[in-house]
Amino acid sequence: MSTKRRVIMDTDTAGDDTIALLTALHHFQVEGVTITGGNVDFDQEVENALYTIQVANPTYHVPVYKGYEGPILQAGNERHRTVEDVHGEDGMGGSFFPKAKQRPEEGHAVDFMIEKVKEYPGEISLLAIAPLTNIAMAIKKDPSIVKDIPHIYIMGGTNNTLGNITPAAEYNFWVDPEAAKLVLHAGIPITMVGWDMCTDYSIMDDHDHEEIQALDTAGSQFFIDINRVVMKFNKEVHRLNGTTHPDTLLVSVAANEDVMSESHDYYVDVETKGELTRGYSLVDINNRFEQPANVRVCEAIDRNKFKEDLFQVLNAIK
Amino acid sequence: MSTKRRVIMDTDTAGDDTIALLTALHHFQVEGVTITGGNVDFDQEVENALYTIQVANPTYHVPVYKGYEGPILQAGNERHRTVEDVHGEDGMGGSFFPKAKQRPEEGHAVDFMIEKVKEYPGEISLLAIAPLTNIAMAIKKDPSIVKDIPHIYIMGGTNNTLGNITPAAEYNFWVDPEAAKLVLHAGIPITMVGWDMCTDYSIMDDHDHEEIQALDTAGSQFFIDINRVVMKFNKEVHRLNGTTHPDTLLVSVAANEDVMSESHDYYVDVETKGELTRGYSLVDINNRFEQPANVRVCEAIDRNKFKEDLFQVLNAIK
Amino acid sequence: MSTKRRVIMDTDTAGDDTIALLTALHHFQVEGVTITGGNVDFDQEVENALYTIQVANPTYHVPVYKGYEGPILQAGNERHRTVEDVHGEDGMGGSFFPKAKQRPEEGHAVDFMIEKVKEYPGEISLLAIAPLTNIAMAIKKDPSIVKDIPHIYIMGGTNNTLGNITPAAEYNFWVDPEAAKLVLHAGIPITMVGWDMCTDYSIMDDHDHEEIQALDTAGSQFFIDINRVVMKFNKEVHRLNGTTHPDTLLVSVAANEDVMSESHDYYVDVETKGELTRGYSLVDINNRFEQPANVRVCEAIDRNKFKEDLFQVLNAIK
Amino acid sequence: MSTKRRVIMDTDTAGDDTIALLTALHHFQVEGVTITGGNVDFDQEVENALYTIQVANPTYHVPVYKGYEGPILQAGNERHRTVEDVHGEDGMGGSFFPKAKQRPEEGHAVDFMIEKVKEYPGEISLLAIAPLTNIAMAIKKDPSIVKDIPHIYIMGGTNNTLGNITPAAEYNFWVDPEAAKLVLHAGIPITMVGWDMCTDYSIMDDHDHEEIQALDTAGSQFFIDINRVVMKFNKEVHRLNGTTHPDTLLVSVAANEDVMSESHDYYVDVETKGELTRGYSLVDINNRFEQPANVRVCEAIDRNKFKEDLFQVLNAIK
Repeated sequence: MSTKRRVIMDTDTAGDDTIALLTALHHFQVEGVTITGGNVDFDQEVENALYTIQVANPTYHVPVYKGYEGPILQAGNERHRTVEDVHGEDGMGGSFFPKAKQRPEEGHAVDFMIEKVKEYPGEISLLAIAPLTNIAMAIKKDPSIVKDIPHIYIMGGTNNTLGNITPAAEYNFWVDPEAAKLVLHAGIPITMVGWDMCTDYSIMDDHDHEEIQALDTAGSQFFIDINRVVMKFNKEVHRLNGTTHPDTLLVSVAANEDVMSESHDYYVDVETKGELTRGYSLVDINNRFEQPANVRVCEAIDRNKFKEDLFQVLNAIK
Repeated sequence: MSTKRRVIMDTDTAGDDTIALLTALHHFQVEGVTITGGNVDFDQEVENALYTIQVANPTYHVPVYKGYEGPILQAGNERHRTVEDVHGEDGMGGSFFPKAKQRPEEGHAVDFMIEKVKEYPGEISLLAIAPLTNIAMAIKKDPSIVKDIPHIYIMGGTNNTLGNITPAAEYNFWVDPEAAKLVLHAGIPITMVGWDMCTDYSIMDDHDHEEIQALDTAGSQFFIDINRVVMKFNKEVHRLNGTTHPDTLLVSVAANEDVMSESHDYYVDVETKGELTRGYSLVDINNRFEQPANVRVCEAIDRNKFKEDLFQVLNAIK
Repeated sequence: MSTKRRVIMDTDTAGDDTIALLTALHHFQVEGVTITGGNVDFDQEVENALYTIQVANPTYHVPVYKGYEGPILQAGNERHRTVEDVHGEDGMGGSFFPKAKQRPEEGHAVDFMIEKVKEYPGEISLLAIAPLTNIAMAIKKDPSIVKDIPHIYIMGGTNNTLGNITPAAEYNFWVDPEAAKLVLHAGIPITMVGWDMCTDYSIMDDHDHEEIQALDTAGSQFFIDINRVVMKFNKEVHRLNGTTHPDTLLVSVAANEDVMSESHDYYVDVETKGELTRGYSLVDINNRFEQPANVRVCEAIDRNKFKEDLFQVLNAIK
Repeated sequence: MSTKRRVIMDTDTAGDDTIALLTALHHFQVEGVTITGGNVDFDQEVENALYTIQVANPTYHVPVYKGYEGPILQAGNERHRTVEDVHGEDGMGGSFFPKAKQRPEEGHAVDFMIEKVKEYPGEISLLAIAPLTNIAMAIKKDPSIVKDIPHIYIMGGTNNTLGNITPAAEYNFWVDPEAAKLVLHAGIPITMVGWDMCTDYSIMDDHDHEEIQALDTAGSQFFIDINRVVMKFNKEVHRLNGTTHPDTLLVSVAANEDVMSESHDYYVDVETKGELTRGYSLVDINNRFEQPANVRVCEAIDRNKFKEDLFQVLNAIK
């Protein structure tokens, strides 16, 4: 009998999203995976999710649903900026894995979310590691689900530090700031793990990669494969010696809150109008705006616990 | 065998929306009515649509679907501005009609639109006489329907003239400018009948009302009832002596293009960022922006034809 | 002894600015002419003002001061859009007149304005027929002059009609909307003659030009010369058969308020933030914003009186 | 014979501005002090500058000029936000010192700047420790001075860290972001010492204050007096145990570049349009915007050198 907590993971599956998905499958009862437009080509993201589930366990069937292919306000003839430079052309470090046997489900991600939340009211938490388009649109389509979602864990934004797509903004909030704004103000309890947590605590450097290689499991090999391009990108662009794991960190925090060694409740909002600052996450740590707190913001990580968790996940995939 | 053209009407049913609905039921095969948040309380709009269908013919069953209750970017704790001052508390001139027997359908307006368009590809035109939230969201949810919608007739915007909710903006575009922008740029053929056409050609003054009263049908009585408040409002606020019929005019144009005596194709866009101009409709009649035309803009009406059409509709409802 | 009212004219001298300047010299004690960046190359504007004074009377010395060469917020490496297509390369219909003998004064236009207003407190009205940069900057530099300026007559904006540089905006407000905003909110009595008055009442068509030609004065010849390019431009771009005289109309109204047959006091503001609507003039004729009126807006012109005035001015220049 | 470098200091004199002024008088030939609207009541700022000069040396006469009392775009009836909560009602820690004997000069700060730069072309650097209104307006009034100003040292902005007036913005940039933008893009070499340098390196804690007290000079006593309120404010609002010295740090860096232990040239811009981010300083350290660097940004301070310099200044005022 499974006593795991039920979650839906919303992901633009590329790079660290895959390790995050492995981690979610390890810790949670993943009711479904919903795909949103973000990191790379949408259909590739779908394939990446399906392949990753197969990596976790070839016998699994976790339904994968297609959602919105681009931000809420993107008109038909527009395309948002994808980041193949970070994750490789296939979003999998250039591994070009074969297609998984499992195929995506019929039906829209948003309808799946709404139905599942209503099927298990108060039980389904959301793990959000992509632009927040799907989740925002689900809440808009059926606002009655708000009261039945116990928690959203969001990888997104930054806490008054440098962004990763512009100086002001983190990628997930930047791609669809209107969606982020809708979700932040929906009234659902939120934990936010920002890009700053990723750079401060999640980096796996050359030595860590050697340790992971030494695990010599299917999981560890997959980790090495999909991180090949991002390792190179981080050294060149972010001056970071190592790979970044924002999504995995988010799932690890969701699974075990002790991984988060410090956090506070703050008012968080998103800039949608600026010329230079679109997608900027306002984290009002001194309460200058005098608004009630709407987000628990992760401010420090127990790096050892996180690393242990990651290793445990990779080790379990034989 | 009906040879009428198939349409879906999207409406925030209050005031002239009802006469427009009667007109649509007269001329078209109305596959369904979808309700969007706009003029008055959302549930009241739903009731008004149901009641109006019953007025048209107590034996009709035209499905009515609930859609989005507010604009795309409206967060859970916000409410858009409704205009009971224009249309009466019930949106029916303070008539407070009894509830119709027909009840709204299960399912979301947007899903109904998508299904119906797919059922009759290339056949279903849209009559849009409300904020464009539902239509924008349908296109976003399933962009594949774009190629299968032959035409959208939009009552909205103004053509370089005074707005009706702010100096810069017409109400339907102002309530949800982001939706208007998405629809205008979707790539579907559009005819726009702006607020300027309404004030220039649609007004029914005291004398017209006497003529309508003299028709002495259930239709004419309904017209008199629901226009009670707006007659008073227009005299006080718009300095207009008479009632305005933007929505009926739109449907009349859709049913018979000869009602439109002049039109041109222009580039049309909507301001979403201004401080004073939110919802302003840019109609670039001199092509200053050097963009391809995306909208056929109605620039003059054959007033006699419109009036004949209105009288025919009201006369047919015994 | 002169009993003429004292004025300073602020102008981006090109095309109709010159006729307006002749008109001002005819009716007013013009204490000085200040040049602001607008229609054409700044130094050319200065020359055009000097030449026009010489046309009015070769014995005149009316001081001409250089002011701001571009809008308030224009950084050093930027250039605002000039309109040689409207006025000819030299802003004088391609006449390429010789340089006038009079040279511009030392000192900045803004300092001249401030000093002159202080010299004759309550006496110096401003005739503003250019972007409002100089006037805004004068008020900012010495706010104490506000109480000593009896009136500003502004050619700028539109009253809920099509603009002339974008659909939303008239050129003078569009070039420097921040300046317009500062002037409109300064607390000085203002009369605004918008672009709509120009197109509705100021046009001189082919027949009018023949009548002017027949005056056979130096003034009438100058009029014909400088209007050569704009006649062609208006036919092609604005679909107007004739030349437009917004600036002359403004001065005519300032000189004789009977030229203005209708006007009302409204709240007027300027959009500075929009994506499509920068420079849009909000004229809140139904008081939707519930702000106190700050501008007397000209709403109709006695066309005969205006034409008489223009002919009188041109006839007086032998 | 003085071989000191010539500077003009632009200041909204309150709190640390005064210590910065003492520091400037110690190291530089201060040609004049110009006052801009910022921290506290404008006339109080003028008095604070005059008093501080007297503290430095009762025999000094350093001319003090009044400049703009508020930001460029502030209309006549508006007031920007002052911060008496930080600096005390008088901006001097509530000391309410008597008026200095020296009075402000006639003439406007901006005209003084322009004249002085022209008098000593290439010699006058600017020390900017206030909103950049005066400097922006000087450059706009006479762009020819740009080439003759060798350097502007700016205390303002933040380098991808928390602001001090909103989460996104530092006070000087926030009060007049348009001015900051104009100055940053003027083409003059700039060194920027942001709020982050202040919080990381300039804080004087209780122990430091004891050391300063022990100097037992007129300078050290003045330091203690004027920092009384800000010490309290910082503990309560910024969670900082100590007083902050952004302006003094800026002057110390300008006087001796060795105080700055690390710096890089970056593209820097300012947000003027955002809803939440007005005044945000974009410091594009990874060159995401692919713009040429326009600012040398101070990234680390040799704290010992700074402290030595401060002590030397305070010790020299007997």
